[in-house]
Amino acid sequence: MNLAKLVRTIPDFPKEGIMFRDITTILKDPDGLSESIRQLREAVKDLEYDVIVGPESRGFIFGVPIAVEEHKGFVPVRKPGKLPAAVYSQEYDLEYGTSTLELHKDALQPGQRVLVTDDLLATGGTAEAIAKLVEQAGAKVVGFAFLVELVDLGGRDKLKDYPVRTLIQYEGE
Amino acid sequence: MNLAKLVRTIPDFPKEGIMFRDITTILKDPDGLSESIRQLREAVKDLEYDVIVGPESRGFIFGVPIAVEEHKGFVPVRKPGKLPAAVYSQEYDLEYGTSTLELHKDALQPGQRVLVTDDLLATGGTAEAIAKLVEQAGAKVVGFAFLVELVDLGGRDKLKDYPVRTLIQYEGE
Repeated sequence: MNLAKLVRTIPDFPKEGIMFRDITTILKDPDGLSESIRQLREAVKDLEYDVIVGPESRGFIFGVPIAVEEHKGFVPVRKPGKLPAAVYSQEYDLEYGTSTLELHKDALQPGQRVLVTDDLLATGGTAEAIAKLVEQAGAKVVGFAFLVELVDLGGRDKLKDYPVRTLIQYEGE
Repeated sequence: MNLAKLVRTIPDFPKEGIMFRDITTILKDPDGLSESIRQLREAVKDLEYDVIVGPESRGFIFGVPIAVEEHKGFVPVRKPGKLPAAVYSQEYDLEYGTSTLELHKDALQPGQRVLVTDDLLATGGTAEAIAKLVEQAGAKVVGFAFLVELVDLGGRDKLKDYPVRTLIQYEGE
């Protein structure tokens, strides 16, 4: 099944000149949704991990079903003020300004092997911040899995120390 | 398996006097996560639905794995400005002020039967707004499934026209 055919491209969102890759058209299709989870599991089957970490909010969409089907735990990374217990914080750069992500301090055990999932690999800023949070907790990132990769934005370079798996790539646009 | 034992209660979050029910302690436990999805599927097995709708962001956590395992589609309801195509909007009341949720206009087909999932039933304001969005699209809510219910907040009264299923209830506190 060709998942790329189910992605809808919306020009000029969220601003002029951006081609937005809308994955909601995969999610609403029962075959598309189940196939995306199957292909992501397949793409990381050589990686050994204990737990999946995914960022708010679209990282939850793919991370949780993989965790359920592989019988792993799922740990959310969230925006500031959302997680109720003590957290590690990590600032990262956006196009304009900075943002922060948080991870519960007791969510990961030292030495745990972590697979990070998200819907989209763009510049890699969010992914790199998540890796730093995981490392603050003494755990180890063993790989990243994304549904979509925007190759020209170079996110893979930021994650060159890790295996990076993506199902759908856009480049040269 | 008693899922309630895996919920962590954090006093005075997000403000003094609130007992926050933290479900991240269920999610990080492989047995807790898979059992919560199993019990939610079991709780709605008499309902006939075509698609699952869940709100950003914790509604994604339970809705997507149920959709995958039942081979249904998943449709996200999001905060304003996140969904890239044309949307229906629905305002709803918060404790102070109002908020808005959005649904892609073409996400649901007229007549489709919708199961709505979220982590928490509190006052029911979010759930009621989702039902209105589904109805704007000409589809039909056939039920709600929540992991946790805060009974004293009366959310069930707002949803009295629908079957409401919850796995863990807190009351009289």
